[in-house]
Amino acid sequence: MIKVGIVGGTGYTGVELLRLLEGHPQAEVRTVTSRKEAGMRVADMFPSLRGLKRFGNLRYVGPAEADLGSCDVVFFATPHGVAMSEARTLTAAGVKIIDLAADFRLKDAAEFERWYKMPHACPELLAESVYGLPEMHREAIRKARIVGNPGCYPTAIQLGFLPLVEEGLADVEHLIADAKSGVSGAGRKAELGLTFSEASDNFKAYNVGAHRHHPEIVQGLNGVSRQPVKVVFTPHLTPMIRGIHATLYARLTKPGVDVQRVFERRFAGEPFVDVMPAGSHPDTRSVRASNMCRIAVHRPQDGDIAVILAVEDNLVKGAAGQAVQNMNLLFGLPETTGLLAPPILP
Amino acid sequence: MIKVGIVGGTGYTGVELLRLLEGHPQAEVRTVTSRKEAGMRVADMFPSLRGLKRFGNLRYVGPAEADLGSCDVVFFATPHGVAMSEARTLTAAGVKIIDLAADFRLKDAAEFERWYKMPHACPELLAESVYGLPEMHREAIRKARIVGNPGCYPTAIQLGFLPLVEEGLADVEHLIADAKSGVSGAGRKAELGLTFSEASDNFKAYNVGAHRHHPEIVQGLNGVSRQPVKVVFTPHLTPMIRGIHATLYARLTKPGVDVQRVFERRFAGEPFVDVMPAGSHPDTRSVRASNMCRIAVHRPQDGDIAVILAVEDNLVKGAAGQAVQNMNLLFGLPETTGLLAPPILP
Amino acid sequence: MIKVGIVGGTGYTGVELLRLLEGHPQAEVRTVTSRKEAGMRVADMFPSLRGLKRFGNLRYVGPAEADLGSCDVVFFATPHGVAMSEARTLTAAGVKIIDLAADFRLKDAAEFERWYKMPHACPELLAESVYGLPEMHREAIRKARIVGNPGCYPTAIQLGFLPLVEEGLADVEHLIADAKSGVSGAGRKAELGLTFSEASDNFKAYNVGAHRHHPEIVQGLNGVSRQPVKVVFTPHLTPMIRGIHATLYARLTKPGVDVQRVFERRFAGEPFVDVMPAGSHPDTRSVRASNMCRIAVHRPQDGDIAVILAVEDNLVKGAAGQAVQNMNLLFGLPETTGLLAPPILP
Amino acid sequence: MIKVGIVGGTGYTGVELLRLLEGHPQAEVRTVTSRKEAGMRVADMFPSLRGLKRFGNLRYVGPAEADLGSCDVVFFATPHGVAMSEARTLTAAGVKIIDLAADFRLKDAAEFERWYKMPHACPELLAESVYGLPEMHREAIRKARIVGNPGCYPTAIQLGFLPLVEEGLADVEHLIADAKSGVSGAGRKAELGLTFSEASDNFKAYNVGAHRHHPEIVQGLNGVSRQPVKVVFTPHLTPMIRGIHATLYARLTKPGVDVQRVFERRFAGEPFVDVMPAGSHPDTRSVRASNMCRIAVHRPQDGDIAVILAVEDNLVKGAAGQAVQNMNLLFGLPETTGLLAPPILP
Repeated sequence: MIKVGIVGGTGYTGVELLRLLEGHPQAEVRTVTSRKEAGMRVADMFPSLRGLKRFGNLRYVGPAEADLGSCDVVFFATPHGVAMSEARTLTAAGVKIIDLAADFRLKDAAEFERWYKMPHACPELLAESVYGLPEMHREAIRKARIVGNPGCYPTAIQLGFLPLVEEGLADVEHLIADAKSGVSGAGRKAELGLTFSEASDNFKAYNVGAHRHHPEIVQGLNGVSRQPVKVVFTPHLTPMIRGIHATLYARLTKPGVDVQRVFERRFAGEPFVDVMPAGSHPDTRSVRASNMCRIAVHRPQDGDIAVILAVEDNLVKGAAGQAVQNMNLLFGLPETTGLLAPPILP
Repeated sequence: MIKVGIVGGTGYTGVELLRLLEGHPQAEVRTVTSRKEAGMRVADMFPSLRGLKRFGNLRYVGPAEADLGSCDVVFFATPHGVAMSEARTLTAAGVKIIDLAADFRLKDAAEFERWYKMPHACPELLAESVYGLPEMHREAIRKARIVGNPGCYPTAIQLGFLPLVEEGLADVEHLIADAKSGVSGAGRKAELGLTFSEASDNFKAYNVGAHRHHPEIVQGLNGVSRQPVKVVFTPHLTPMIRGIHATLYARLTKPGVDVQRVFERRFAGEPFVDVMPAGSHPDTRSVRASNMCRIAVHRPQDGDIAVILAVEDNLVKGAAGQAVQNMNLLFGLPETTGLLAPPILP
Repeated sequence: MIKVGIVGGTGYTGVELLRLLEGHPQAEVRTVTSRKEAGMRVADMFPSLRGLKRFGNLRYVGPAEADLGSCDVVFFATPHGVAMSEARTLTAAGVKIIDLAADFRLKDAAEFERWYKMPHACPELLAESVYGLPEMHREAIRKARIVGNPGCYPTAIQLGFLPLVEEGLADVEHLIADAKSGVSGAGRKAELGLTFSEASDNFKAYNVGAHRHHPEIVQGLNGVSRQPVKVVFTPHLTPMIRGIHATLYARLTKPGVDVQRVFERRFAGEPFVDVMPAGSHPDTRSVRASNMCRIAVHRPQDGDIAVILAVEDNLVKGAAGQAVQNMNLLFGLPETTGLLAPPILP
Repeated sequence: MIKVGIVGGTGYTGVELLRLLEGHPQAEVRTVTSRKEAGMRVADMFPSLRGLKRFGNLRYVGPAEADLGSCDVVFFATPHGVAMSEARTLTAAGVKIIDLAADFRLKDAAEFERWYKMPHACPELLAESVYGLPEMHREAIRKARIVGNPGCYPTAIQLGFLPLVEEGLADVEHLIADAKSGVSGAGRKAELGLTFSEASDNFKAYNVGAHRHHPEIVQGLNGVSRQPVKVVFTPHLTPMIRGIHATLYARLTKPGVDVQRVFERRFAGEPFVDVMPAGSHPDTRSVRASNMCRIAVHRPQDGDIAVILAVEDNLVKGAAGQAVQNMNLLFGLPETTGLLAPPILP
């Protein structure tokens, strides 16, 4: 059994980790920390967990009391800046780290500081850490000590652009990512703009040209592109709880190519990327509560612009599910272990 | 492995059965029928099922082609009237039946005809069939050949009233059940009043005094009551997909009684009834996609009226989950087999 | 033109007052205050107001700078406790007051203190103030200096019980009010439980037996009842923005009475109470953004329990619209002035 | 008073016309037709209209009985194909026509037939008809006999692209319109994909590359462009009732240009186009139930791609409101008459 610690168990990614690990046959949550709720039963915080066989009686422990050093792996489901402050101690103790925040996503420490307004606490560990998108870095993840789990938007957007960019089939200087997220993507926090009265029956863009996931997307695509990429990224808030729908636009440089085949070939064998038949329109609910990313490819009016539709559950493939997928890789388990429950529909 | 047939696999309860059985270690779906969609892959109808290990490649078969006779159990996830028309043949072949519609809920064939506008096709089987609420009829279900799976409202309402009625603690002539259902309770069908434009950002009562679940509730409570019960039942449509919230009012005949204890004692050991601490307010999402029914008890102003709050997922404990629970009982499996996945929150 | 001041213009009732007064031919908003947003254009806070003829350029002023004394009437769309602290000064200056908070709702100062945890600042003005439910106190409102505008729940619940209680037709010791509110009823504030991720696709009761609107309901009904009333009041949060649906239960003491006629007679001529045909099920959206309260009466199974359904828009008839209705009465205008725009549907 | 007839008064645009005209001081609805509901009171169909001063007692008349010839103007809120079949008779009788369907939108009768699968019934009237987007064709509308009221998507998309295309500032061969619509845009009809259970808590694209509004957008922009335009148009269904959010992408051919100023200049004085300050993110609810279209302009990373955000209420500026605006123009009234009620927020 893999001994698991979770730092920060009161947010949506923390409780989603608990939900997924409840059904994981090879992992065992040893400790869940919370600064504010130490001593409280997790199930008193989240009544949905009442009565569960494994976690029904778990209690939060304060960060100081948590014996993280005896865990095999620690997930950080915390705000940015926490994981990097504990990374040296934990890695020295032989504990693997999966950070669901941004501390180990951007390889350039200066870039990290520019976007997250804090200096990086351990640049040398940043250098060795691996970006946890298995479809791009599977082999490196297997050997990693620290995994920077991708952001929710970057997962769908990179997966959607990947085949075209890798093969040099797109004008990479004019990629457009028009993405729509459910409200849970903003986290479990009291904020006026996230209230039901403000966010339901409404649709809006936000942070156009200034979202923190932008550099992460660019870095990822640059890693596979022959030329530097430029991405216009427009995030929107849509009145649903879970789900991201990325609508991606790429001008094809070789219009004769069979885009559908490029995608099917690229993701053949990927357990969590479903390339749908040509002409499909995946809906976000088709992956609700599951680790699947579904992709469909279009070419309107047979023109030179490809339209790629990619959906995922932002809390699963966009966060906790992908983190478990990474854990499976880190410990040599079948990658799909504990991640095959069907989506919830309707 | 229990060999399972599902008649009517295109509605919400049918697809929910598939979702639950995908994770059931002792059951195997052999056939799923559909009159209209025979030949189609189930996953083409419900893309959420694409790529699933067990059901990803299942196809609908026409009712005539389905070899139901070789199944151990057949679930009917059909409109009212279908199960009873096939019950004689199947039971004669030794196949057990779990009907998710109303054919085997009302013991009185005349009552059935009055509410469902069709004569009952097999009154002798109706007589031997068992009402599938395990918390009331567990032992009878174990031995049954035919189980009439309860309606969604009746499950929450009967569980909520049960302890008081059984113990003779309530004025049973004036029970009030004010119940609120998510829209999926109406089934998967194109109806103007169920469209998003009509049903979202809206709340309304419907069928006040005339809902088909009324006789079923009365029958169930009469079975445990010392005196004939009368129930005022007001169903409401609320803008959510899944979930029922029953708010129940009973005038206490012995105001000194400790209602909380009565409930805790009655449901001690029940795996799918969670009596919450006094003063709790269960929310429907705390049971989303799970088979749990959570109940909380209140006594406002220490008066003589008890207020019981009961929540369930109408498609799980209110339909497909309870049906699987009944299947487990029919075949001597642990009652919770395949039903312990945590709720989905948020 | 009536010169209007609004204290507290950043909450939902404040901005709803602005919306309604924009179309009022006899009133003119002279000043809108905000402690935090002084100097800001109202339309920068609420872009929905951009470009409006009358209020498009209005700016918030700090409470100290606002010349409220020169207004004819001041609306308080503030937290509890603000109106009573300014009431003496304003009434002395001849300014009429309409308080949308609770300061002038409960006639008993001790009761006010018990529920709102602060002593009343001006008991002598409380004594002369009038409870602003026109259907009960129309004549007194016309002559009042201070109007305590009713709470949202109490408006629907009192209107729904009124005919039966006035005529002595109900068992007033066992009235039950099962009420469901949209999320805007909680106000415009950042609170975790009000976020979209927590409040959508969900339904729950809250504050059972302990809601601040309870004493207000009891006080109002006691005022017209021959015997002291007892009310069990169960508020619920439902995933819609606006709207209250009250489902009311009363045991009839004279079962032979024609309840439908009692209601029709009681509200004949009332411009904002619509008694629907027998058997109707009003939906909340049928009054969205309007000042109408629609009521339907049922008598399930011809039993002795009457079920009354009452819907209103909590921000209009339940708050700002009723406040404007009261203003019209205070200044001798036709009661419906500025309040006849049709509901928004869908 | 303008004498108004409405053909097809049971859909969302029909009832929205009634709502808007209830408050119009210069128009009077003389007749509302419905094939199916002839004889029924409109307020029995739409209880939101109960008790209205002007339309509370209106009844539907059958198309044959309706005296449309005595109207000054007839609105067609009908399926495609109805208006053109009656256009000759009505125009001969001196009645003006505003068609909210597509019969008079596409100037090319062959194009109409290709997309709508029916031959055009009166090509000669199509030739003289005017496309009813006042911001483009104000003067022509004033003199028209027949106005083809624009589709909901085309209104927002054309307004958003207009300034750049008119001035030749964009690469018109690669315009991208990523648009999101509320569910009411699909009309008032029973369709499985529009039900709450299917469309809420979900997001999806549909008809990518094949939406009927595509030719209308291209035609409109071609009318002002120096070169033929190509538009990739991706419509999405978003879980809200009303509202369209168009996110538009255009590659700038003269990157030095001040896009914000171009927009402000183009729409200066337009009563229903609100160019917001640079950096704004308009939300759809800021125009809910109003005739306003709000636009904001972005230029991410100071690159050569402009991102334009445009929001409207699909039933108002995208349908019935724009139709009333056109009526005002046809009859020489101030263009804003009856259209200045503030949006409904929250």
